[in-house]
Amino acid sequence: MAGTDTQQSDHRGLGAFADLPSPVVVLVEPQLAENIGMCCRAMLNGGLTELRLVNPRDGWPHPKATAAASGADVVVDNAKLFDTVEEAVADLTRVYATTARDRDSTMRIMTPHAAAQDMRGAVLSENKIGVLFGREAKGLTNAELSLADTVIAAPLNPGFKSLNIAQAVLMVAYEWWQAGPGGEAPDIEQTIPSDTRLANGAEMQGLFDHLERELDACGFLRVPEKRPTMVRNIRNTLNRAHMTEQEVRTFRGIITGLAKHGGGTNH
Amino acid sequence: MAGTDTQQSDHRGLGAFADLPSPVVVLVEPQLAENIGMCCRAMLNGGLTELRLVNPRDGWPHPKATAAASGADVVVDNAKLFDTVEEAVADLTRVYATTARDRDSTMRIMTPHAAAQDMRGAVLSENKIGVLFGREAKGLTNAELSLADTVIAAPLNPGFKSLNIAQAVLMVAYEWWQAGPGGEAPDIEQTIPSDTRLANGAEMQGLFDHLERELDACGFLRVPEKRPTMVRNIRNTLNRAHMTEQEVRTFRGIITGLAKHGGGTNH
Repeated sequence: MAGTDTQQSDHRGLGAFADLPSPVVVLVEPQLAENIGMCCRAMLNGGLTELRLVNPRDGWPHPKATAAASGADVVVDNAKLFDTVEEAVADLTRVYATTARDRDSTMRIMTPHAAAQDMRGAVLSENKIGVLFGREAKGLTNAELSLADTVIAAPLNPGFKSLNIAQAVLMVAYEWWQAGPGGEAPDIEQTIPSDTRLANGAEMQGLFDHLERELDACGFLRVPEKRPTMVRNIRNTLNRAHMTEQEVRTFRGIITGLAKHGGGTNH
Repeated sequence: MAGTDTQQSDHRGLGAFADLPSPVVVLVEPQLAENIGMCCRAMLNGGLTELRLVNPRDGWPHPKATAAASGADVVVDNAKLFDTVEEAVADLTRVYATTARDRDSTMRIMTPHAAAQDMRGAVLSENKIGVLFGREAKGLTNAELSLADTVIAAPLNPGFKSLNIAQAVLMVAYEWWQAGPGGEAPDIEQTIPSDTRLANGAEMQGLFDHLERELDACGFLRVPEKRPTMVRNIRNTLNRAHMTEQEVRTFRGIITGLAKHGGGTNH
Protein backbone atom coordinates (compact mmCIF):
# COMPACT_ATOMS: atom_id res chain seq x y z
CA MET A 1 0.00 0.00 0.00
CA ALA A 2 2.81 2.43 -0.83
CA GLY A 3 2.31 5.31 -3.19
CA THR A 4 2.26 9.06 -2.80
CA ASP A 5 0.40 11.32 -5.15
CA THR A 6 2.97 14.07 -5.43
CA GLN A 7 0.63 16.23 -7.46
CA GLN A 8 -1.52 16.63 -4.38
CA SER A 9 1.42 17.32 -2.07
CA ASP A 10 2.27 20.67 -0.65
CA HIS A 11 5.07 21.52 1.75
CA ARG A 12 3.26 19.83 4.62
CA GLY A 13 2.12 16.92 2.52
CA LEU A 14 -1.47 17.76 3.39
CA GLY A 15 -2.91 19.37 0.31
CA ALA A 16 -6.30 20.90 0.98
CA PHE A 17 -6.29 19.77 4.60
CA ALA A 18 -3.30 21.83 5.75
CA ASP A 19 -5.37 24.38 7.63
CA LEU A 20 -7.59 22.02 9.62
CA PRO A 21 -6.68 21.73 13.28
CA SER A 22 -5.61 18.23 14.22
CA PRO A 23 -4.47 16.38 17.33
CA VAL A 24 -0.97 16.64 18.71
CA VAL A 25 0.84 13.33 19.17
CA VAL A 26 2.78 13.11 22.45
CA LEU A 27 5.37 10.33 22.76
CA VAL A 28 6.28 9.79 26.40
CA GLU A 29 9.94 8.78 26.86
CA PRO A 30 10.33 6.89 23.59
CA GLN A 31 13.42 4.74 23.72
CA LEU A 32 14.50 4.20 20.11
CA ALA A 33 15.00 7.12 17.72
CA GLU A 34 14.02 4.77 14.91
CA ASN A 35 10.62 4.26 16.52
CA ILE A 36 10.10 8.01 16.66
CA GLY A 37 10.77 8.19 12.93
CA MET A 38 8.30 5.37 12.27
CA CYS A 39 5.71 7.24 14.33
CA CYS A 40 6.31 10.37 12.20
CA ARG A 41 5.68 8.31 9.08
CA ALA A 42 2.53 6.78 10.58
CA MET A 43 1.26 10.24 11.62
CA LEU A 44 1.61 11.84 8.21
CA ASN A 45 -0.39 9.01 6.60
CA GLY A 46 -3.32 10.32 8.61
CA GLY A 47 -2.49 13.98 8.12
CA LEU A 48 -1.08 14.52 11.63
CA THR A 49 1.97 16.80 11.70
CA GLU A 50 2.44 18.02 15.26
CA LEU A 51 4.72 15.82 17.39
CA ARG A 52 5.83 16.39 20.97
CA LEU A 53 8.58 14.31 22.55
CA VAL A 54 8.98 13.90 26.30
CA ASN A 55 12.57 12.94 27.20
CA PRO A 56 13.47 10.75 24.19
CA ARG A 57 16.19 8.41 25.41
CA ASP A 58 18.36 8.62 22.28
CA GLY A 59 18.23 12.43 22.21
CA TRP A 60 16.79 14.71 19.56
CA PRO A 61 17.21 15.36 16.65
CA HIS A 62 18.55 11.97 15.58
CA PRO A 63 19.58 10.70 12.11
CA LYS A 64 17.94 7.30 12.68
CA ALA A 65 14.61 9.02 13.24
CA THR A 66 14.93 10.95 10.00
CA ALA A 67 15.79 7.79 8.07
CA ALA A 68 12.90 5.80 9.56
CA ALA A 69 10.45 8.62 8.80
CA SER A 70 10.76 7.73 5.09
CA GLY A 71 10.13 11.25 3.91
CA ALA A 72 7.79 12.50 6.64
CA ASP A 73 10.27 15.32 7.22
CA VAL A 74 7.63 17.88 8.01
CA VAL A 75 6.79 15.94 11.17
CA VAL A 76 10.39 15.25 12.19
CA ASP A 77 11.54 18.83 11.63
CA ASN A 78 8.73 20.39 13.64
CA ALA A 79 8.87 18.02 16.63
CA LYS A 80 9.11 19.78 19.98
CA LEU A 81 10.97 18.60 23.08
CA PHE A 82 9.58 18.61 26.63
CA ASP A 83 11.01 17.60 30.00
CA THR A 84 7.75 16.37 31.51
CA VAL A 85 4.40 15.07 30.30
CA GLU A 86 2.70 17.82 32.30
CA GLU A 87 4.51 20.48 30.27
CA ALA A 88 3.77 18.67 27.03
CA VAL A 89 0.01 18.78 27.66
CA ALA A 90 -0.13 22.15 29.41
CA ASP A 91 -1.87 23.97 26.55
CA LEU A 92 -4.22 21.11 25.63
CA THR A 93 -7.89 21.20 26.56
CA ARG A 94 -8.59 17.54 25.71
CA VAL A 95 -6.12 14.75 26.29
CA TYR A 96 -6.53 11.15 25.14
CA ALA A 97 -4.21 8.31 26.12
CA THR A 98 -3.60 4.97 24.46
CA THR A 99 -3.32 1.75 26.39
CA ALA A 100 -4.22 -1.90 25.97
CA ARG A 101 -4.18 -2.62 29.66
CA ASP A 102 -7.20 -2.88 31.86
CA ARG A 103 -6.80 -0.30 34.58
CA ASP A 104 -8.24 -0.40 38.03
CA SER A 105 -9.68 3.06 37.82
CA THR A 106 -12.74 4.72 36.40
CA MET A 107 -12.02 6.11 32.95
CA ARG A 108 -13.88 6.74 29.75
CA ILE A 109 -12.70 4.24 27.14
CA MET A 110 -13.15 4.60 23.39
CA THR A 111 -12.24 2.58 20.36
CA PRO A 112 -9.91 4.36 17.92
CA HIS A 113 -12.93 4.72 15.64
CA ALA A 114 -15.11 6.42 18.25
CA ALA A 115 -12.20 8.50 19.54
CA ALA A 116 -11.62 9.87 16.04
CA GLN A 117 -15.26 11.01 15.83
CA ASP A 118 -14.91 12.50 19.29
CA MET A 119 -11.70 14.34 18.35
CA ARG A 120 -13.23 15.73 15.16
CA GLY A 121 -16.02 17.17 17.26
CA ALA A 122 -13.55 18.49 19.81
CA VAL A 123 -11.45 20.45 17.30
CA LEU A 124 -14.62 21.97 15.85
CA SER A 125 -15.35 23.26 19.36
CA GLU A 126 -11.92 24.88 19.26
CA ASN A 127 -10.31 22.46 21.63
CA LYS A 128 -6.58 21.94 21.35
CA ILE A 129 -6.27 18.20 21.68
CA GLY A 130 -3.53 15.63 22.03
CA VAL A 131 -2.98 11.89 22.30
CA LEU A 132 -0.45 10.33 24.68
CA PHE A 133 1.52 7.25 23.64
CA GLY A 134 3.61 5.44 26.25
CA ARG A 135 7.06 3.92 26.33
CA GLU A 136 7.74 0.97 24.02
CA ALA A 137 8.04 -1.56 26.82
CA LYS A 138 6.18 -0.07 29.75
CA GLY A 139 3.45 2.15 28.35
CA LEU A 140 2.14 4.97 30.52
CA THR A 141 2.23 5.17 34.30
CA ASN A 142 -1.07 5.56 36.12
CA ALA A 143 -0.06 9.12 37.00
CA GLU A 144 0.49 9.92 33.32
CA LEU A 145 -2.76 8.21 32.41
CA SER A 146 -4.60 10.43 34.86
CA LEU A 147 -3.61 13.48 32.79
CA ALA A 148 -6.01 12.18 30.13
CA ASP A 149 -9.78 12.30 30.20
CA THR A 150 -10.26 9.46 27.72
CA VAL A 151 -8.48 6.20 27.05
CA ILE A 152 -8.21 4.91 23.49
CA ALA A 153 -8.12 1.11 23.34
CA ALA A 154 -8.38 -0.87 20.12
CA PRO A 155 -10.58 -3.97 20.31
CA LEU A 156 -8.17 -6.65 19.10
CA ASN A 157 -7.72 -10.39 19.63
CA PRO A 158 -7.70 -10.70 23.45
CA GLY A 159 -5.39 -13.68 23.13
CA PHE A 160 -2.74 -11.66 21.30
CA LYS A 161 -2.83 -7.89 21.57
CA SER A 162 0.59 -6.72 20.52
CA LEU A 163 1.07 -3.45 18.65
CA ASN A 164 4.34 -1.59 18.46
CA ILE A 165 4.25 2.14 19.14
CA ALA A 166 4.19 3.17 15.47
CA GLN A 167 1.29 0.79 14.82
CA ALA A 168 -0.61 2.29 17.74
CA VAL A 169 0.02 5.75 16.28
CA LEU A 170 -1.13 4.48 12.89
CA MET A 171 -4.43 3.18 14.33
CA VAL A 172 -5.20 6.64 15.68
CA ALA A 173 -3.96 8.52 12.60
CA TYR A 174 -5.85 6.18 10.26
CA GLU A 175 -9.14 6.59 12.13
CA TRP A 176 -8.58 10.35 12.41
CA TRP A 177 -8.26 10.53 8.64
CA GLN A 178 -11.32 8.30 8.03
CA ALA A 179 -13.41 10.57 10.25
CA GLY A 180 -12.50 13.71 8.34
CA PRO A 181 -13.16 15.35 4.99
CA GLY A 182 -10.41 13.29 3.34
CA GLY A 183 -11.88 10.01 4.52
CA GLU A 184 -14.96 9.83 2.38
CA ALA A 185 -15.23 6.25 1.23
CA PRO A 186 -15.49 5.53 -2.46
CA ASP A 187 -18.74 4.10 -3.73
CA ILE A 188 -18.93 0.41 -3.10
CA GLU A 189 -20.64 -1.86 -5.51
CA GLN A 190 -23.00 -4.05 -3.55
CA THR A 191 -22.78 -7.72 -4.51
CA ILE A 192 -25.26 -10.28 -3.26
CA PRO A 193 -23.74 -13.77 -3.18
CA SER A 194 -26.08 -16.37 -4.69
CA ASP A 195 -26.81 -19.58 -2.85
CA THR A 196 -24.95 -21.62 -5.42
CA ARG A 197 -21.22 -22.13 -5.05
CA LEU A 198 -18.97 -19.38 -6.33
CA ALA A 199 -16.25 -20.41 -8.76
CA ASN A 200 -12.82 -20.85 -7.21
CA GLY A 201 -9.50 -19.53 -8.52
CA ALA A 202 -8.64 -22.66 -10.48
CA GLU A 203 -11.99 -22.63 -12.25
CA MET A 204 -11.66 -18.96 -13.16
CA GLN A 205 -8.11 -19.60 -14.37
CA GLY A 206 -9.45 -22.42 -16.54
CA LEU A 207 -12.00 -20.04 -18.03
CA PHE A 208 -9.37 -17.37 -18.71
CA ASP A 209 -6.98 -19.89 -20.29
CA HIS A 210 -9.75 -21.24 -22.48
CA LEU A 211 -10.95 -17.81 -23.58
CA GLU A 212 -7.47 -16.41 -24.24
CA ARG A 213 -6.50 -19.50 -26.21
CA GLU A 214 -9.51 -18.98 -28.46
CA LEU A 215 -8.92 -15.25 -28.70
CA ASP A 216 -5.31 -15.88 -29.73
CA ALA A 217 -6.49 -18.39 -32.28
CA CYS A 218 -9.07 -16.10 -33.84
CA GLY A 219 -6.63 -13.19 -33.99
CA PHE A 220 -8.46 -10.98 -31.50
CA LEU A 221 -5.24 -10.64 -29.46
CA ARG A 222 -2.93 -10.43 -32.44
CA VAL A 223 -1.25 -7.08 -31.57
CA PRO A 224 1.51 -8.10 -29.13
CA GLU A 225 1.87 -4.70 -27.43
CA LYS A 226 -1.86 -4.50 -26.75
CA ARG A 227 -2.28 -8.08 -25.59
CA PRO A 228 -1.40 -7.69 -21.85
CA THR A 229 -3.81 -4.79 -21.36
CA MET A 230 -6.59 -6.49 -23.24
CA VAL A 231 -6.14 -9.73 -21.30
CA ARG A 232 -6.11 -7.84 -18.03
CA ASN A 233 -9.28 -5.93 -18.83
CA ILE A 234 -11.08 -9.10 -19.86
CA ARG A 235 -10.03 -10.87 -16.67
CA ASN A 236 -11.04 -7.90 -14.53
CA THR A 237 -14.42 -7.79 -16.18
CA LEU A 238 -15.07 -11.46 -15.54
CA ASN A 239 -13.67 -11.29 -12.01
CA ARG A 240 -16.07 -8.51 -11.14
CA ALA A 241 -18.91 -10.76 -12.16
CA HIS A 242 -18.34 -13.07 -9.16
CA MET A 243 -19.30 -16.01 -11.31
CA THR A 244 -20.68 -19.25 -9.97
CA GLU A 245 -19.18 -22.56 -10.92
CA GLN A 246 -22.24 -23.19 -13.11
CA GLU A 247 -21.78 -19.85 -14.87
CA VAL A 248 -18.15 -20.68 -15.59
CA ARG A 249 -19.23 -23.92 -17.23
CA THR A 250 -21.88 -22.01 -19.18
CA PHE A 251 -19.33 -19.47 -20.38
CA ARG A 252 -16.88 -22.15 -21.38
CA GLY A 253 -19.69 -23.73 -23.37
CA ILE A 254 -20.34 -20.39 -25.05
CA ILE A 255 -16.65 -19.99 -25.92
CA THR A 256 -16.47 -23.50 -27.30
CA GLY A 257 -19.67 -23.01 -29.26
CA LEU A 258 -18.61 -19.69 -30.74
CA ALA A 259 -15.13 -20.91 -31.55
CA LYS A 260 -16.44 -23.99 -33.35
CA HIS A 261 -18.95 -22.22 -35.52
CA GLY A 262 -16.80 -19.13 -35.92
CA GLY A 263 -13.86 -21.11 -37.22
CA GLY A 264 -11.89 -21.31 -33.94
CA THR A 265 -9.32 -23.86 -32.85
CA ASN A 266 -11.83 -26.58 -31.92
CA HIS A 267 -10.20 -27.73 -28.69
CA MET B 1 -0.90 -0.61 23.32
CA ALA B 2 0.87 -3.83 24.29
CA GLY B 3 -0.73 -6.37 26.56
CA THR B 4 -1.97 -9.89 26.11
CA ASP B 5 -4.59 -11.43 28.30
CA THR B 6 -3.05 -14.86 28.72
CA GLN B 7 -6.07 -16.14 30.59
CA GLN B 8 -8.04 -15.83 27.39
CA SER B 9 -5.37 -17.45 25.24
CA ASP B 10 -5.55 -20.90 23.81
CA HIS B 11 -3.06 -22.64 21.56
CA ARG B 12 -4.06 -20.47 18.61
CA GLY B 13 -4.32 -17.33 20.67
CA LEU B 14 -7.92 -16.95 19.56
CA GLY B 15 -10.02 -18.00 22.51
CA ALA B 16 -13.67 -18.36 21.59
CA PHE B 17 -13.04 -17.28 17.99
CA ALA B 18 -10.82 -20.20 17.01
CA ASP B 19 -13.46 -21.95 14.94
CA LEU B 20 -14.65 -19.02 12.85
CA PRO B 21 -13.46 -19.05 9.24
CA SER B 22 -11.26 -16.09 8.43
CA PRO B 23 -9.37 -14.75 5.42
CA VAL B 24 -6.07 -16.17 4.26
CA VAL B 25 -3.23 -13.65 3.97
CA VAL B 26 -1.11 -14.12 0.83
CA LEU B 27 2.26 -12.36 0.75
CA VAL B 28 3.55 -12.18 -2.83
CA GLU B 29 7.35 -12.45 -3.03
CA PRO B 30 8.10 -10.76 0.28
CA GLN B 31 11.75 -9.75 0.40
CA LEU B 32 12.70 -9.57 4.08
CA ALA B 33 12.05 -12.46 6.45
CA GLU B 34 11.72 -9.89 9.22
CA ASN B 35 8.79 -8.30 7.41
CA ILE B 36 7.07 -11.67 7.16
CA GLY B 37 7.39 -12.02 10.92
CA MET B 38 5.96 -8.55 11.47
CA CYS B 39 3.05 -9.48 9.22
CA CYS B 40 2.42 -12.60 11.34
CA ARG B 41 2.30 -10.41 14.44
CA ALA B 42 -0.07 -7.95 12.75
CA MET B 43 -2.33 -10.79 11.58
CA LEU B 44 -2.76 -12.39 14.99
CA ASN B 45 -3.81 -9.04 16.49
CA GLY B 46 -6.86 -9.34 14.28
CA GLY B 47 -7.32 -13.07 14.79
CA LEU B 48 -5.95 -14.07 11.37
CA THR B 49 -3.84 -17.23 11.45
CA GLU B 50 -3.55 -18.58 7.91
CA LEU B 51 -0.55 -17.28 5.97
CA ARG B 52 0.57 -18.21 2.46
CA LEU B 53 3.95 -17.18 1.08
CA VAL B 54 4.71 -16.95 -2.62
CA ASN B 55 8.46 -17.24 -3.25
CA PRO B 56 9.82 -15.46 -0.18
CA ARG B 57 13.26 -14.14 -1.18
CA ASP B 58 15.01 -15.03 2.10
CA GLY B 59 13.63 -18.58 2.10
CA TRP B 60 11.34 -20.23 4.63
CA PRO B 61 11.33 -20.94 7.54
CA HIS B 62 13.65 -18.19 8.74
CA PRO B 63 14.80 -17.30 12.29
CA LYS B 64 14.41 -13.55 11.68
CA ALA B 65 10.75 -14.07 10.87
CA THR B 66 10.20 -15.99 14.08
CA ALA B 67 11.91 -13.26 16.11
CA ALA B 68 9.95 -10.45 14.46
CA ALA B 69 6.67 -12.28 15.02
CA SER B 70 6.99 -11.52 18.75
CA GLY B 71 5.16 -14.62 19.84
CA ALA B 72 2.73 -15.05 16.95
CA ASP B 73 4.18 -18.52 16.50
CA VAL B 74 0.89 -20.08 15.49
CA VAL B 75 0.96 -18.01 12.32
CA VAL B 76 4.65 -18.56 11.55
CA ASP B 77 4.50 -22.30 12.13
CA ASN B 78 1.48 -22.87 9.90
CA ALA B 79 2.59 -20.70 6.97
CA LYS B 80 2.47 -22.49 3.62
CA LEU B 81 4.82 -22.01 0.66
CA PHE B 82 3.73 -21.60 -2.99
CA ASP B 83 5.63 -21.13 -6.23
CA THR B 84 3.06 -18.92 -7.94
CA VAL B 85 0.26 -16.59 -6.93
CA GLU B 86 -2.10 -18.62 -9.09
CA GLU B 87 -1.43 -21.72 -6.98
CA ALA B 88 -1.76 -19.73 -3.76
CA VAL B 89 -5.29 -18.61 -4.67
CA ALA B 90 -6.43 -21.75 -6.49
CA ASP B 91 -8.86 -22.88 -3.76
CA LEU B 92 -10.17 -19.40 -2.97
CA THR B 93 -13.58 -18.22 -4.12
CA ARG B 94 -13.06 -14.55 -3.25
CA VAL B 95 -9.75 -12.75 -3.61
CA TYR B 96 -9.02 -9.22 -2.41
CA ALA B 97 -5.84 -7.31 -3.20
CA THR B 98 -4.30 -4.35 -1.45
CA THR B 99 -2.82 -1.41 -3.29
CA ALA B 100 -2.50 2.33 -2.84
CA ARG B 101 -2.00 3.00 -6.50
CA ASP B 102 -4.62 4.20 -8.88
CA ARG B 103 -4.89 1.56 -11.55
CA ASP B 104 -5.82 2.01 -15.13
CA SER B 105 -8.55 -0.57 -15.10
CA THR B 106 -12.05 -0.97 -13.78
CA MET B 107 -12.07 -2.74 -10.45
CA ARG B 108 -14.23 -2.76 -7.40
CA ILE B 109 -12.47 -0.73 -4.73
CA MET B 110 -13.25 -0.84 -1.02
CA THR B 111 -11.90 0.79 2.09
CA PRO B 112 -10.46 -1.64 4.65
CA HIS B 113 -13.58 -0.95 6.73
CA ALA B 114 -16.00 -1.81 3.94
CA ALA B 115 -13.89 -4.76 2.83
CA ALA B 116 -14.03 -6.22 6.34
CA GLN B 117 -17.83 -6.09 6.29
CA ASP B 118 -17.77 -7.65 2.85
CA MET B 119 -15.42 -10.43 3.97
CA ARG B 120 -17.56 -11.21 7.03
CA GLY B 121 -20.51 -11.65 4.73
CA ALA B 122 -18.46 -13.74 2.33
CA VAL B 123 -17.31 -16.27 4.95
CA LEU B 124 -20.89 -16.63 6.18
CA SER B 125 -21.76 -17.66 2.61
CA GLU B 126 -19.05 -20.32 2.92
CA ASN B 127 -16.59 -18.58 0.68
CA LYS B 128 -12.92 -19.32 1.18
CA ILE B 129 -11.37 -15.89 0.94
CA GLY B 130 -7.91 -14.40 0.81
CA VAL B 131 -6.13 -11.06 0.65
CA LEU B 132 -3.08 -10.45 -1.54
CA PHE B 133 -0.28 -8.19 -0.34
CA GLY B 134 2.47 -7.20 -2.77
CA ARG B 135 6.24 -6.90 -2.60
CA GLU B 136 7.68 -4.32 -0.20
CA ALA B 137 8.99 -2.05 -2.95
CA LYS B 138 6.95 -2.87 -6.00
CA GLY B 139 3.55 -4.04 -4.80
CA LEU B 140 1.55 -6.30 -7.09
CA THR B 141 1.84 -6.54 -10.85
CA ASN B 142 -1.25 -5.82 -12.89
CA ALA B 143 -1.42 -9.50 -13.79
CA GLU B 144 -1.44 -10.43 -10.09
CA LEU B 145 -4.01 -7.74 -9.36
CA SER B 146 -6.28 -9.24 -12.00
CA LEU B 147 -6.51 -12.44 -9.92
CA ALA B 148 -8.52 -10.43 -7.42
CA ASP B 149 -12.10 -9.29 -7.71
CA THR B 150 -11.81 -6.45 -5.22
CA VAL B 151 -9.11 -3.92 -4.38
CA ILE B 152 -8.68 -2.76 -0.79
CA ALA B 153 -7.36 0.79 -0.60
CA ALA B 154 -7.16 2.77 2.61
CA PRO B 155 -8.20 6.41 2.32
CA LEU B 156 -5.14 8.14 3.71
CA ASN B 157 -3.43 11.50 3.24
CA PRO B 158 -3.06 11.75 -0.57
CA GLY B 159 0.07 13.82 -0.07
CA PHE B 160 1.79 11.05 1.92
CA LYS B 161 0.46 7.53 1.61
CA SER B 162 3.25 5.31 2.87
CA LEU B 163 2.50 2.10 4.75
CA ASN B 164 4.94 -0.74 5.13
CA ILE B 165 3.67 -4.22 4.41
CA ALA B 166 3.02 -5.15 8.05
CA GLN B 167 1.04 -1.93 8.53
CA ALA B 168 -1.05 -2.74 5.47
CA VAL B 169 -1.71 -6.20 6.92
CA LEU B 170 -2.59 -4.59 10.25
CA MET B 171 -5.16 -2.28 8.61
CA VAL B 172 -6.93 -5.29 7.16
CA ALA B 173 -6.61 -7.46 10.29
CA TYR B 174 -7.77 -4.61 12.53
CA GLU B 175 -10.87 -3.93 10.45
CA TRP B 176 -11.57 -7.67 10.14
CA TRP B 177 -11.59 -7.93 13.92
CA GLN B 178 -13.77 -4.81 14.36
CA ALA B 179 -16.34 -6.28 11.97
CA GLY B 180 -16.66 -9.57 13.86
CA PRO B 181 -18.00 -10.94 17.13
CA GLY B 182 -14.83 -9.91 18.96
CA GLY B 183 -15.26 -6.34 17.78
CA GLU B 184 -18.65 -5.89 19.33
CA ALA B 185 -17.17 -3.91 22.18
CA PRO B 186 -19.17 -0.73 22.51
CA ASP B 187 -17.51 2.26 20.88
CA ILE B 188 -17.48 3.98 24.21
CA GLU B 189 -17.40 2.31 27.58
CA GLN B 190 -16.19 2.96 31.04
CA THR B 191 -14.15 0.64 33.20
CA ILE B 192 -15.39 0.27 36.73
CA PRO B 193 -13.27 -1.22 39.52
CA SER B 194 -14.75 -4.54 40.58
CA ASP B 195 -15.50 -3.41 44.13
CA THR B 196 -17.94 -0.68 43.15
CA ARG B 197 -20.62 0.23 40.64
CA LEU B 198 -21.92 3.33 38.89
CA ALA B 199 -24.01 5.60 41.08
CA ASN B 200 -27.74 5.44 40.44
CA GLY B 201 -30.10 8.35 40.02
CA ALA B 202 -31.13 8.47 43.68
CA GLU B 203 -27.52 8.61 44.80
CA MET B 204 -26.73 11.39 42.35
CA GLN B 205 -29.83 13.26 43.49
CA GLY B 206 -28.67 12.83 47.07
CA LEU B 207 -25.33 14.33 46.13
CA PHE B 208 -26.95 17.26 44.31
CA ASP B 209 -29.34 17.95 47.20
CA HIS B 210 -26.52 17.83 49.68
CA LEU B 211 -24.29 20.12 47.64
CA GLU B 212 -27.00 22.64 46.82
CA ARG B 213 -28.12 22.79 50.44
CA GLU B 214 -24.59 23.66 51.47
CA LEU B 215 -24.18 26.11 48.62
CA ASP B 216 -27.43 27.81 49.64
CA ALA B 217 -26.22 27.92 53.21
CA CYS B 218 -22.88 29.48 52.38
CA GLY B 219 -24.43 32.06 50.09
CA PHE B 220 -22.94 30.77 46.82
CA LEU B 221 -26.42 30.51 45.27
CA ARG B 222 -27.79 33.65 46.83
CA VAL B 223 -28.87 35.46 43.60
CA PRO B 224 -32.33 33.97 42.88
CA GLU B 225 -32.41 34.71 39.13
CA LYS B 226 -29.04 33.04 38.63
CA ARG B 227 -29.71 30.04 40.82
CA PRO B 228 -31.44 27.74 38.28
CA THR B 229 -28.67 28.14 35.70
CA MET B 230 -25.90 27.64 38.23
CA VAL B 231 -27.54 24.54 39.67
CA ARG B 232 -28.06 23.09 36.22
CA ASN B 233 -24.44 23.68 35.26
CA ILE B 234 -23.15 22.07 38.42
CA ARG B 235 -25.36 19.03 37.93
CA ASN B 236 -24.35 18.71 34.29
CA THR B 237 -20.70 18.80 35.24
CA LEU B 238 -21.08 16.04 37.82
CA ASN B 239 -23.32 13.97 35.57
CA ARG B 240 -20.71 13.98 32.85
CA ALA B 241 -18.28 12.44 35.32
CA HIS B 242 -20.31 9.18 35.42
CA MET B 243 -19.47 8.78 39.09
CA THR B 244 -19.37 5.50 40.95
CA GLU B 245 -21.29 4.98 44.17
CA GLN B 246 -17.96 5.10 46.02
CA GLU B 247 -17.08 8.42 44.41
CA VAL B 248 -20.46 9.87 45.37
CA ARG B 249 -19.79 8.95 48.99
CA THR B 250 -16.34 10.46 48.72
CA PHE B 251 -17.75 13.70 47.33
CA ARG B 252 -20.39 13.89 50.00
CA GLY B 253 -17.62 13.48 52.55
CA ILE B 254 -15.76 16.33 50.91
CA ILE B 255 -18.83 18.56 51.01
CA THR B 256 -19.49 17.73 54.64
CA GLY B 257 -15.85 18.31 55.51
CA LEU B 258 -15.64 21.64 53.75
CA ALA B 259 -18.95 22.81 55.08
CA LYS B 260 -18.06 22.00 58.69
CA HIS B 261 -14.74 23.75 58.68
CA GLY B 262 -15.93 26.50 56.37
CA GLY B 263 -18.84 27.38 58.66
CA GLY B 264 -21.54 25.47 56.79
CA THR B 265 -24.86 24.21 58.04
CA ASN B 266 -23.47 21.19 59.87
CA HIS B 267 -26.10 18.67 58.79
